[in-house]
Amino acid sequence: MAYDIGKTELINLYSLETLKQFSTDFLLALGATDEEAAIVTDGLMTASLWWHPGQGQGLEKFFRFYRQIKNGGIVPNAPMQWVREGPSYALLDAAKGFGYVSAHRAMARAIEKAKVTGIAMVGVRHSNHFGIAGYHALHAAKHGLIGWSFTNAKAEMAPWGSAQVVLGTNPWGIAIPRKDTHAIVLDMALTMSGKGMMRWYMNEGKPMPDSWALTPDGAKTTDPAAAMEGPLLPIGEYKGYGLSLITDVLAGVMTGSLFGLKVFQDESHHDVGHVMLAIDPGAFMPREEVDARLEQLIAEVKGAPPIDPARPVILPGEVEFKRMAQREQDGVPLSRETVEGLRGLAEELKVAFPL
Amino acid sequence: MAYDIGKTELINLYSLETLKQFSTDFLLALGATDEEAAIVTDGLMTASLWWHPGQGQGLEKFFRFYRQIKNGGIVPNAPMQWVREGPSYALLDAAKGFGYVSAHRAMARAIEKAKVTGIAMVGVRHSNHFGIAGYHALHAAKHGLIGWSFTNAKAEMAPWGSAQVVLGTNPWGIAIPRKDTHAIVLDMALTMSGKGMMRWYMNEGKPMPDSWALTPDGAKTTDPAAAMEGPLLPIGEYKGYGLSLITDVLAGVMTGSLFGLKVFQDESHHDVGHVMLAIDPGAFMPREEVDARLEQLIAEVKGAPPIDPARPVILPGEVEFKRMAQREQDGVPLSRETVEGLRGLAEELKVAFPL
Repeated sequence: MAYDIGKTELINLYSLETLKQFSTDFLLALGATDEEAAIVTDGLMTASLWWHPGQGQGLEKFFRFYRQIKNGGIVPNAPMQWVREGPSYALLDAAKGFGYVSAHRAMARAIEKAKVTGIAMVGVRHSNHFGIAGYHALHAAKHGLIGWSFTNAKAEMAPWGSAQVVLGTNPWGIAIPRKDTHAIVLDMALTMSGKGMMRWYMNEGKPMPDSWALTPDGAKTTDPAAAMEGPLLPIGEYKGYGLSLITDVLAGVMTGSLFGLKVFQDESHHDVGHVMLAIDPGAFMPREEVDARLEQLIAEVKGAPPIDPARPVILPGEVEFKRMAQREQDGVPLSRETVEGLRGLAEELKVAFPL
Repeated sequence: MAYDIGKTELINLYSLETLKQFSTDFLLALGATDEEAAIVTDGLMTASLWWHPGQGQGLEKFFRFYRQIKNGGIVPNAPMQWVREGPSYALLDAAKGFGYVSAHRAMARAIEKAKVTGIAMVGVRHSNHFGIAGYHALHAAKHGLIGWSFTNAKAEMAPWGSAQVVLGTNPWGIAIPRKDTHAIVLDMALTMSGKGMMRWYMNEGKPMPDSWALTPDGAKTTDPAAAMEGPLLPIGEYKGYGLSLITDVLAGVMTGSLFGLKVFQDESHHDVGHVMLAIDPGAFMPREEVDARLEQLIAEVKGAPPIDPARPVILPGEVEFKRMAQREQDGVPLSRETVEGLRGLAEELKVAFPL
């Protein structure tokens, strides 16, 4: 089965099981341990089920893994170490390991601690791109806690009033567990949009909103091509700039990773930092009461009449969980370009290629 | 000395000491304890030094205090109680006391706990408007910690895709301490703007950006009058909606305060909820190193060339601290309307009126 999304890419659908097996085999061939392969595969599968192929968070990540493992930027079976620990905090040195793995271990530790103390913060230094922020937040929600993940990232945002990039999109994931149904999952960059989305608009020949990015000399524009080398604009103007700066303080400055202009610049040494928060929603009252009160708030939110009757109000993450259910049934989309690239890698690594 | 800000208001300047004394006398006359009067006065003075008179966060608050103390909405000398406590969390029942007081006590407790455990979260239930969010965050920064304050508020924001308000502007304050100088202080609502600012644009006869608010039937508009009864728009579109929802979960749902459509509706029972986070920036490495790394990031940020050479890049809070220094010297602006209103209240309460 194939379908066309705009002019950009031709897409085929593949079963989740097939992709899982391929991902696991591929990661093992790259030197990942069984545990690492399982964690990274789970993250990539979630990204593949939630996000669009053009967003580069699914199996497209393998191209980067391959390059970075070759150039030493990612170390499989990395000797990660816990370097600091207190009642409600800990710091993991990721030793250049997979970002999915270090962030997963950090959130697991935050969950353990928050169950005892009410809230915990676990930092990660010397890590790599951790995938989608919402995935790590959801990890906490699956254990009944609120999760909040922060990461720094390559400079793509300018301080407010400048056009020179210094700060990253510094994505956040926040997840609130619900009883008997999917969590609320807010997965967001601190910019209005990203270069990938702008490229899609450019390829489609569409104008973009002028709140997305500036030209390199700081002018507003609706032409994605004119802003491709310019800074992305933060959410809420100076507010998002402030949030991005604060995120880099938490994830970069405090943890001991690179930050600002230096993080994520040299592919053999991205040195990304993360922070994971876990919060016990039942710290202040019996959990059943919190759960009931949450459903009451959600009913108020979802009861708000939509402006367009065809588009009812949805919760953060709701689109993604619907997409996930559909793709689990119909298959996961991968662009032909990605599949061809993966075929090449599979041949090189002598991994079975079932796509 | 008097100056005119647009067509709106005639302003006079008063010395900080005069206003402090008046505020203290006024609060004591309303039944506040010495401690409450000192805390509320400090908050109001900070707001008066940071914000503009039209924003209603300075001595204009006395009109509300007076009404709410009469109708039982605010209880001076309230019997606040610590109702839950664990290693890194606590919950304060504010018993309808002053919001500034309950939030101050909550942050004080969060600071104490975070110094021991690395991070702490203190909730407040049954509270009132806590003033400016950044003030409470700065409380932590003054003790060398990162502060993050959350509150819920009256429904003024619609869930994304609706025009019916359900959620508040739910302001955040985030403060990062710096060595030997003012903290970074981000004080922000989760909406692009507020009704006060829209009213100012309306009075000035100016169009507003169409990202600020919708008409009551959900249309975009640049006419502030057309949107005065409509919903405020969130920062980052659906992202700010998600952040506001999550804030109401933390501050309202979890604490046991009202939330969503009900909070801040009945002036005799606002029942606002807050959450204060305090974080030890030195949890992961020696504090001097963190301080030095922070200054390095700030140098990169402030080194970014401005688009308009006359407007160099500034940090969150920098405008406010400059304004504060100037007003401490020149005096604090109060509109003639406010002064006349306060004169009436002072007469009624038999408080000396030095303005």
